[in-house]
Amino acid sequence: MADPRETGPALDPKWDAQGLITGVATDADSGALLMVAHLNAEALALTLSTGEAHFWSRSRQRIWKKGETSGHVLRVVEARIDCDQDALWLRVRPAGPACHTGAPSCFYRRIENGALVAG
Amino acid sequence: MADPRETGPALDPKWDAQGLITGVATDADSGALLMVAHLNAEALALTLSTGEAHFWSRSRQRIWKKGETSGHVLRVVEARIDCDQDALWLRVRPAGPACHTGAPSCFYRRIENGALVAG
Repeated sequence: MADPRETGPALDPKWDAQGLITGVATDADSGALLMVAHLNAEALALTLSTGEAHFWSRSRQRIWKKGETSGHVLRVVEARIDCDQDALWLRVRPAGPACHTGAPSCFYRRIENGALVAG
Repeated sequence: MADPRETGPALDPKWDAQGLITGVATDADSGALLMVAHLNAEALALTLSTGEAHFWSRSRQRIWKKGETSGHVLRVVEARIDCDQDALWLRVRPAGPACHTGAPSCFYRRIENGALVAG
């Protein structure tokens, strides 16, 4: 009954219909969730080989190194994968704000009573 | 230039072509990433109204309350949303192992030199 994808030692990502897995980046020191994005096979290979987070931009339809223009790269301290290998967890050290808005994290608003509150 | 979805107070999720956003659950105490799943509008509404994490199962095509059979529910301490409102961060207190394999987190393997290592 054991599913080798869940129990085995092989990295065997379960790409979705668009050829992507979900990537989650957290701050390796504070633990804060910084951003969520997507990776195709090339982005995953580049992330693992360079030690800097790369993603696939669905809006621009191209590989995107996080921080390629801002300089705010994410250095990968550890990469982990989930049970069914469709989600990647990158524990990173960010070189600057992770969000394009300038916020340290993309998750700068909490939901309270159905509305959004900063901080 | 300000995008109200990024700067405004309205919860206005950016559903993908399947009507889903990405959900990320972390342990509110340890900060560990527990699981990644997806939510449709009903799952989000149920999560916010009940304070327990609900998701949309893409494989079973139905609403799924995490822990509905195992009892390992995720009590939501805080819900946050990202800049473009296509990802939800749930800080939770888990009632048991978050992974269906029995592991505390679905991310029980790290990637080292292209292979998977437990722990």
